[in-house]
Amino acid sequence: MSTHAFAAREAGGKFDEFDFDSGDLGRDEVEIDVRNCGICHSDLSMLNNEWGMTAYPFVGGHEVVGTVAAFGEDVAGLTVGQTVGLGWWSKSCMSCSECMAGDHNLCTTAEATILGRHGGFADKVRASAEWVLPLPEGVNDATAGPLFCGGVTVFNPIIQNNIQPTDRVGVVGIGGLGHMALRFLKAWGCHVTAFSTSPAKEEEARGFGAYDFVSTNDGKGLQKLTGSLDMILVTVNVELDWDAYIAALKPKGVLHIVGAAPKITASVFPLILGQKSISASPSGSAATLREMLEFCGRHRIEPQVETFPMSGINEAFEKLHRGKPRYRIVLENDLK
Amino acid sequence: MSTHAFAAREAGGKFDEFDFDSGDLGRDEVEIDVRNCGICHSDLSMLNNEWGMTAYPFVGGHEVVGTVAAFGEDVAGLTVGQTVGLGWWSKSCMSCSECMAGDHNLCTTAEATILGRHGGFADKVRASAEWVLPLPEGVNDATAGPLFCGGVTVFNPIIQNNIQPTDRVGVVGIGGLGHMALRFLKAWGCHVTAFSTSPAKEEEARGFGAYDFVSTNDGKGLQKLTGSLDMILVTVNVELDWDAYIAALKPKGVLHIVGAAPKITASVFPLILGQKSISASPSGSAATLREMLEFCGRHRIEPQVETFPMSGINEAFEKLHRGKPRYRIVLENDLK
Repeated sequence: MSTHAFAAREAGGKFDEFDFDSGDLGRDEVEIDVRNCGICHSDLSMLNNEWGMTAYPFVGGHEVVGTVAAFGEDVAGLTVGQTVGLGWWSKSCMSCSECMAGDHNLCTTAEATILGRHGGFADKVRASAEWVLPLPEGVNDATAGPLFCGGVTVFNPIIQNNIQPTDRVGVVGIGGLGHMALRFLKAWGCHVTAFSTSPAKEEEARGFGAYDFVSTNDGKGLQKLTGSLDMILVTVNVELDWDAYIAALKPKGVLHIVGAAPKITASVFPLILGQKSISASPSGSAATLREMLEFCGRHRIEPQVETFPMSGINEAFEKLHRGKPRYRIVLENDLK
Repeated sequence: MSTHAFAAREAGGKFDEFDFDSGDLGRDEVEIDVRNCGICHSDLSMLNNEWGMTAYPFVGGHEVVGTVAAFGEDVAGLTVGQTVGLGWWSKSCMSCSECMAGDHNLCTTAEATILGRHGGFADKVRASAEWVLPLPEGVNDATAGPLFCGGVTVFNPIIQNNIQPTDRVGVVGIGGLGHMALRFLKAWGCHVTAFSTSPAKEEEARGFGAYDFVSTNDGKGLQKLTGSLDMILVTVNVELDWDAYIAALKPKGVLHIVGAAPKITASVFPLILGQKSISASPSGSAATLREMLEFCGRHRIEPQVETFPMSGINEAFEKLHRGKPRYRIVLENDLK
């Protein structure tokens, strides 16, 4: 079976057309006809081999929406033609303690969609069935792609930290991840404060659901919030004045990191006195993905996207590289 | 009302006899006839003004066991002569959100027993009634003092982190706090691993309830535990190789700090991938103290103590300063 894709041949290279033989479909596998695929910042990191684990030719793409083209004999519960999505992970062992507990994202042998495999910048993509999830009623298939990685990455901390509608939550960074976090938390019923270095984003942030907005260019806005937030969700991947954010947490509050800054350094005494914590998480489990999709369908939550044809993938990456998408890019498959 | 105490007149000074007028008893206050009082490492830090907030003459002591001598007109539920204990805190506002939620230890106006007040190295000590707790059946009044600060400091993380009897827990540092943590976690039903720089403590650690013992002088023992622990409770106040301990946590595991090391620095990526967290806490609330005391009574848990007469307070501090107590010191009141 031949797959037609876009691949980069070297670190930081341009994408061009690439055909490969995907072989026989595995018993547990699903082949998806790609309708569209989001671009995540981690696609850019992988393209540039920032984590030292990219293999070339590199076919990125792990925010896929498409239809089931075929599936292996052990796959149950899917039908050909059904609309499904696929995110960061493509396979979990389904037998380790983490998988058995519903934490398929923490399976130590989980395989990523764009690591040792070819991803969704293609006409077809394959994954093990546990990570191929039908879109429930109310979810817009044109924009759902980014929910499968960026979306569930910010939804997961809400579940993991047992966030309640009575909680006050801060979201640091109003970009691809942050704007989805605002929409989730608004629907969750929380008091939500957006933190951004761009004062120009205030109006949009409020439109996404922020109740309050703090420009982080001056430290005063943060200082006013001392002791007030139950969770601060950090979606940026730069080092912050961690102690200043920890000071803004309520007693028992949690600073939760999903942006991969290299290191965190914090003073221990304020953590002890306020019984505070620092936590972090990757993209969510397949179980959390299902919960998120149902929640999105019921509340009509979707990412705000800009679309490019898949053939315009290099222009789309250029826009991402310049940090300018508002707020998430989706490539529409025009390969056929 | 005159109180007879031991006070230090300057930072690092010796204690000598000191009388002061304690004035009228407040409506919410209880006066305790001190039977005995533990010495906590924080008494030594306060004596030496390490935190820059000690007032002299300084009367330390915040692990008090004694009998109710008198109480104010608004105090309910206590009787004169009843055996009670008192720990780090002496007063909480009882009306803020934290107090109302049972987190009296996180009340931002909570008053400490040895800060702005005189503590338990005396014949009498006073506190607001919410922090004066009767000893339940089964608790040995001769050794209970250290439960009221050191004990609840290591019991609190078990409650806060919702530790289950099926969990694997590591305890770093087998001293005053650590040995109590081992006894609690043994009774809790957990698989407990003791970490110590002193291989000589292995036998005692196993006696306190450790199922396994790791000497931290070579890094190999820690390395063997990669990905295995649900919680690591850090009772030492020095900076550790935090990343190495975080690596020993299971996915979703928590590194919990009660020893006041100045700073923690950790790599973010391993925290994200393993959905791990770093948390910290002070001594527990009055509600947690009650739970701990009942648990201790039922399981006959007590600290292992060395006793000195209160008149030998300077020898006792010298022993604590040299780090030699096995494992907690209690001063028996011989002032009368």
